[in-house]
Amino acid sequence: AINSERLWDSLMTLAEIGATDKGGVCRLALTDLDRQGRELFVRWTRDAGCSVRVDAIGNIFARREGSDPSRPAVATGSHIDTQPTGGKFDGNYGVLAGLEVLRTLNDAGVRTVAPLEVCVWTNEEGSRFVPVMMGSGVYAGDFTLETALAAVDRDGISVGHALQAIGFAGNAPAAVADGAPRFGAYFEAHIEQGPVLEDADIPLGVVTGALGQRWYDVTVTGQEAHAGPTPMRLRRDALQAATALMQEVVATAMDEQPDGRGTVGYVQVYPNSRNVIPGKVVFTVDFRHANDEGLSRMDARLRQACAAAQAVGRVQVQVEQTVYYPPAHFAPELVAAVRHGAERAGLPHMDIVSGAGHDAVYVARTAPTSMIFVPCKDGISHNEIEDAQPEHLAAGCNVLLHAMLEQAGV
Amino acid sequence: AINSERLWDSLMTLAEIGATDKGGVCRLALTDLDRQGRELFVRWTRDAGCSVRVDAIGNIFARREGSDPSRPAVATGSHIDTQPTGGKFDGNYGVLAGLEVLRTLNDAGVRTVAPLEVCVWTNEEGSRFVPVMMGSGVYAGDFTLETALAAVDRDGISVGHALQAIGFAGNAPAAVADGAPRFGAYFEAHIEQGPVLEDADIPLGVVTGALGQRWYDVTVTGQEAHAGPTPMRLRRDALQAATALMQEVVATAMDEQPDGRGTVGYVQVYPNSRNVIPGKVVFTVDFRHANDEGLSRMDARLRQACAAAQAVGRVQVQVEQTVYYPPAHFAPELVAAVRHGAERAGLPHMDIVSGAGHDAVYVARTAPTSMIFVPCKDGISHNEIEDAQPEHLAAGCNVLLHAMLEQAGV
Ligand SMILES: NC(=O)NCCC(=O)O
Ligand SMILES: NC(=O)NCCC(=O)O
Repeated sequence: AINSERLWDSLMTLAEIGATDKGGVCRLALTDLDRQGRELFVRWTRDAGCSVRVDAIGNIFARREGSDPSRPAVATGSHIDTQPTGGKFDGNYGVLAGLEVLRTLNDAGVRTVAPLEVCVWTNEEGSRFVPVMMGSGVYAGDFTLETALAAVDRDGISVGHALQAIGFAGNAPAAVADGAPRFGAYFEAHIEQGPVLEDADIPLGVVTGALGQRWYDVTVTGQEAHAGPTPMRLRRDALQAATALMQEVVATAMDEQPDGRGTVGYVQVYPNSRNVIPGKVVFTVDFRHANDEGLSRMDARLRQACAAAQAVGRVQVQVEQTVYYPPAHFAPELVAAVRHGAERAGLPHMDIVSGAGHDAVYVARTAPTSMIFVPCKDGISHNEIEDAQPEHLAAGCNVLLHAMLEQAGV
Repeated sequence: AINSERLWDSLMTLAEIGATDKGGVCRLALTDLDRQGRELFVRWTRDAGCSVRVDAIGNIFARREGSDPSRPAVATGSHIDTQPTGGKFDGNYGVLAGLEVLRTLNDAGVRTVAPLEVCVWTNEEGSRFVPVMMGSGVYAGDFTLETALAAVDRDGISVGHALQAIGFAGNAPAAVADGAPRFGAYFEAHIEQGPVLEDADIPLGVVTGALGQRWYDVTVTGQEAHAGPTPMRLRRDALQAATALMQEVVATAMDEQPDGRGTVGYVQVYPNSRNVIPGKVVFTVDFRHANDEGLSRMDARLRQACAAAQAVGRVQVQVEQTVYYPPAHFAPELVAAVRHGAERAGLPHMDIVSGAGHDAVYVARTAPTSMIFVPCKDGISHNEIEDAQPEHLAAGCNVLLHAMLEQAGV
């Protein structure tokens, strides 16, 4: 079994780098704080006997050799960059759970057949540089290394420049297509970032896949007019049409229960003055679904609603899809390995689908993959008050240990 | 009949003070541009033989004596301050139509029995200083002179200070309650600022009153959460509850046709991020109705909907009423005077209720009052592209002439 206190200590030590007044962490990707976090990880894994490899997008791989050099690595990991007002556990837990697995095996003198690797993926959060999940996205080939290196932050600093500046522009190929090694298996432990486990009072989630996502920008254009002298029948109220569509977004998701989710997170009204009928409204739609047909149904219904709204509200509606991730279905044998791990540890567990994107979702395109979720307090993440219980974190780490050993062989 | 060209020329001359590149006017209340406009008005009315009186809130009254000094004045007027991106006609037309009536009577050598007055009310727009319709509001006693003088702009400059600076802090009492004279009758000519006359293809509106108004700030508080991992059934989506209420605002107005109006003009979503379920939404409601019972029905329905939304959406809803104006019913004999004027001028006309607040709505609390509306292009006002046809402006001015003569006697 892993050492729960050591895991907690390493989490708290890493959390000091970029610690905020409110108990959170601000450690944006490829900043000097990120460098400090990365160097701590490299030191800890070297101390644990690992060799360390850095690829061209800055992903870090700490490797513990196995007895059979011909076997592909059984890997785990996550990210250590955070949101500007992030927490101590998002990403960091997956990386340090991997480190704790290595340390536990060292303590027990266990040698695995396949080598083990712990990965730190670059810029998962996407706060400083877009797109999100950049390091794993390049690895899996969703976009090119060149695209990623050219991305710039608000100050015009590129990813390529920032990697050089912090000393993490590595030589290893970043993309599987360019020769980066595929894993034999990949596991990622993560806080759930949602309320499902806590609501069900179950300490461990066996993650069977991730919801597909379609994101949209919707623009409704009507006619700005004075709220007083303009009778209802002569209005072209962009907000009235837009709010009907926003209601439809949620209704669409409700009709796809339990697998669908629909969120309007962003709304901008023009001119946004209390006695002016809005002439223009821009809002976003975030649809998620466990299967692609469901996601397509949601897409079709949104487009139909937008088309219909034009006639009813005498407005124009433009819909632009900005993001598409197909649903990820994790490898059944790795999902089973996580389930076995939970059973061995005697933990109540439930199957769960990840609602959020994770590096594992990209890695799953290249190798058998699964994830392990542990509860976080009130389901809150991307927030300085993000919190998790030490015994849950330890339980998830034990499941990771068992699952990796099952795949790597002893 | 009035001189259409002279009216147009005076409108275009005044519009040069604060003229914008896009053909509009920016002449904020109590700025140096406002001073220039006021001084031009004073010069023009003095040239027309008037005495000029300025009261303590800066309202200007240009007086042409009648033959019977015991009769109260028959007055007209409006405002010459504009929105930051305002037009040439809003307010300015009512003031210069009054001037044109005086000039026409001078040309014809007509002496009225009652004296005539043309008023320029201070800060009708409320752009620089809140509240709107400040000069007429003090006059009618809706709030005190002290309150008005203490109002400050964004730079901390008070109305009292600004009035001194432009030389329009007068000595005459500002409020009727403090001895400001009541009028025998008050007319205000104004562009409609809406599409009704244009839609009906009628050049003149006989204004029978003004809609009552109730304005609200509504705050919906739910729970901010990640759009991905949070299932629909565990959400407390502030925007979903808010958009249902926004739909209800319009539905409420639709059920009060043709007399009711309902507008949501302002919306702010927190944190306004595309993959975060909104935790808080603030929006405004602007209800208007021709009668107070209707306005009370709308108020009750809004409060009921807000209360009901709390249970359905697992959110908190706070409703705060910020503005209340009761509906104004103009004096039947003055409405009739406007109608007679239109008939004498052989103009197609229709009864209309003002949807917007005007200085006349305050004056109506102190004296018999009515208004004259002329069409404006596409119903657009509070916009640099505000436009009106010279023949409509002249027609409205002729109606004003007839109505004032009917009331003042010759
Ligand atoms: N884990 C995470 O927050 N991913 C961000 C992208 C998403 O909204 O799923
Ligand atoms: N005339 C005018 O724009 N008044 C402003 C207040 C209102 O919205 O009615």
